[in-house]
Amino acid sequence: MTTDIFFQIVAPDEALARLFEHLPRSARSERIGLNAALDRVTAAPLMSPEDSPAFARSAMDGYAVRAADTYGASEGLPAFLTVDGEVPMGAAATRPLRPGTAQLIHTGGMLPPEADAVVMVEYTQPVDETSVEVLRPAAPGQHVIQTGEDLAAGDELLPAGHQLRAQDLGVLAALGITEVDASIPPVIGVLSSGDEVVPASTRPAPGKVRDVNATTLAALACRAGAEVRQFGVAPDARAELERRARKALDTCDLVVISAGSSVSTRDMTADVIGSLGSPGVLAHGIAVKPGKPTIVAMADGKPVFGLPGNPVSAMVVFGLVVVPTIRRLLGLKAKEEPPQRPARLARSLASQSGRIDLVPAVLQRREGEWWADPVLGPSNLIATLVRASGLIRIPLDAGGLPKGAWVDVEPF
Amino acid sequence: MTTDIFFQIVAPDEALARLFEHLPRSARSERIGLNAALDRVTAAPLMSPEDSPAFARSAMDGYAVRAADTYGASEGLPAFLTVDGEVPMGAAATRPLRPGTAQLIHTGGMLPPEADAVVMVEYTQPVDETSVEVLRPAAPGQHVIQTGEDLAAGDELLPAGHQLRAQDLGVLAALGITEVDASIPPVIGVLSSGDEVVPASTRPAPGKVRDVNATTLAALACRAGAEVRQFGVAPDARAELERRARKALDTCDLVVISAGSSVSTRDMTADVIGSLGSPGVLAHGIAVKPGKPTIVAMADGKPVFGLPGNPVSAMVVFGLVVVPTIRRLLGLKAKEEPPQRPARLARSLASQSGRIDLVPAVLQRREGEWWADPVLGPSNLIATLVRASGLIRIPLDAGGLPKGAWVDVEPF
Repeated sequence: MTTDIFFQIVAPDEALARLFEHLPRSARSERIGLNAALDRVTAAPLMSPEDSPAFARSAMDGYAVRAADTYGASEGLPAFLTVDGEVPMGAAATRPLRPGTAQLIHTGGMLPPEADAVVMVEYTQPVDETSVEVLRPAAPGQHVIQTGEDLAAGDELLPAGHQLRAQDLGVLAALGITEVDASIPPVIGVLSSGDEVVPASTRPAPGKVRDVNATTLAALACRAGAEVRQFGVAPDARAELERRARKALDTCDLVVISAGSSVSTRDMTADVIGSLGSPGVLAHGIAVKPGKPTIVAMADGKPVFGLPGNPVSAMVVFGLVVVPTIRRLLGLKAKEEPPQRPARLARSLASQSGRIDLVPAVLQRREGEWWADPVLGPSNLIATLVRASGLIRIPLDAGGLPKGAWVDVEPF
Repeated sequence: MTTDIFFQIVAPDEALARLFEHLPRSARSERIGLNAALDRVTAAPLMSPEDSPAFARSAMDGYAVRAADTYGASEGLPAFLTVDGEVPMGAAATRPLRPGTAQLIHTGGMLPPEADAVVMVEYTQPVDETSVEVLRPAAPGQHVIQTGEDLAAGDELLPAGHQLRAQDLGVLAALGITEVDASIPPVIGVLSSGDEVVPASTRPAPGKVRDVNATTLAALACRAGAEVRQFGVAPDARAELERRARKALDTCDLVVISAGSSVSTRDMTADVIGSLGSPGVLAHGIAVKPGKPTIVAMADGKPVFGLPGNPVSAMVVFGLVVVPTIRRLLGLKAKEEPPQRPARLARSLASQSGRIDLVPAVLQRREGEWWADPVLGPSNLIATLVRASGLIRIPLDAGGLPKGAWVDVEPF
């Protein structure tokens, strides 16, 4: 369970593939009310319990008719029908439609017995209070939504592993489904380390800096659908780091440790992560810049990540490996496709084939086109974090890119 | 205050411009902790209270040196320096660097007095335990982040009206800012109407249907950053609709009423909305399909919207006019730019110049390209809601579009 095996640097997807082999297939679930279900993930497929609509409805404002009564009608030779009252909204239409008659009907109104079509009010002309001329023939079923035409009882509404959107909740409401089984959000333990790091609420002594990663990673985890538990800052002492990591593992479903910035701290973090449980470290180093010194591990069924201490690197790696793991633990089926905005590169960028580059950039619209201007300077400046509004993604196998090239930019 | 003035159909932006004239310039604010501040909106600009870093730091693992001591160093003729111990991580470096010496330093370590540069460990070669050869000259300031280089005291970190992202919170944490003034989320009252509509928890009698809009609009409002209060379903009776609307107005900052599906109900809703307060209805009908029968009004300082009863239309219009109003009430400065995915049209679409068309579509990836397949059939089928994953936006002045044309699709 130590990290003295030689690990080659692997692509983020390969690191995740190794991790996912050890993860359970399905998430634990709980029953929740519809008003708390936005963005939650379905634990089982949802079927329609009934036909919708439950009765034939009019799709238009107009007249319920027998289609046969309008056969051959035209502007020149309209069909003449007696108006036999109005279909009440929100009540059963029980009065059968007699031949040669029409009943006034509103959008959503229930089609009366014996009626089989609706004529739009635009294609009628009132004659007097009790009769109307129909100017066009109606085909049977015209402007009628038949019973179960929208959804039939037993139809699959939503698959398992689907993240519930506003409209999904609306459809469930329409069918009287007011509770759903949703996966339980995984609990993520966030632990920082480094002798030089102090909590944000503290005034740092000379030589010390406040913790950034606990805050950024918690926010990213929260947005990904996890529940966050904080485990503070561990000093660069193996026993204390391990004690805190084990405490986090005991009460959480996955743990992220952001290492201090020095090499010795990173090595110690790797060593502690490897000792937490079986099978231990699965990837030590991933092919991404920034973020190479990342550790992906599995400790007795729970994922553990060692992230770089640099705040920009930690955020980038969190998005690449921790967010997909949270989604997997949530039972989400679809692979996340972060919305990409195509933009042109405001200056040429060097890259190296064989690794993914994620470059913080300022997105700006100029003359109708989006341009991405890379934020330069040392990557460990926190000002980079507030200035950047996007991440330029340079794929694994691309080399450098010239100024003006089109790139994919994800929001940051 | 009645709606008997003649209202022309206006573009959504024009309806909003009329509304925003009557809205206060700034939102009310409250002080909140950083851990509750994700996605909240800053009520005032935030300035850096201190220099960051607070001391000159090393950006690399290596040796702190006097740059002058490395002048002319090369692989052939290295500079020879005495190693005078190590800079402790997380503590003040108080021991001045004597001429001809180097101190081991880690990334993030504090630069010792008299040192002015850092040599990366890669460009050094140990001689013995107390001396090292430097193989390249160091320029003054090399690999050093100077005091205040990242952020200086008084620098603006974030403007007012900015929605807080994970990284913004991280930067605030770095500077010891653990509380921020954020705008108070506006409270939105959601009221449905229609004799045929019953709450989702009810078993509908023949002729009745369950309310969809209360659920979808609440979810959309929640996502836009508002707090939601539900006011149930009003029957098609003027007095009762007005009573409920006034109750909603009394306790909320804005109100949306989704009308029943019949023309008579819509007319009554328009009449009630016009009577709620001054100046009343500002736009009756907007140039968008679906969603034309929309009412935008202002009642004594509070926005009121009458939305179509059709669930797809109600969602589309909510996104076009209610979400921008919520953003305005939140004090958000940036105009929302919904992430657009360019996709090709899977079949030709008719449209009309002079209106915006929003067409629900299924987004699919085929042979490396995204295709948007419009969901056809009556627009009032709720199955459309679950099937569609995107909204194709056809701009105000475009006519129809041929199959294969590139269109902008926003997530739905």
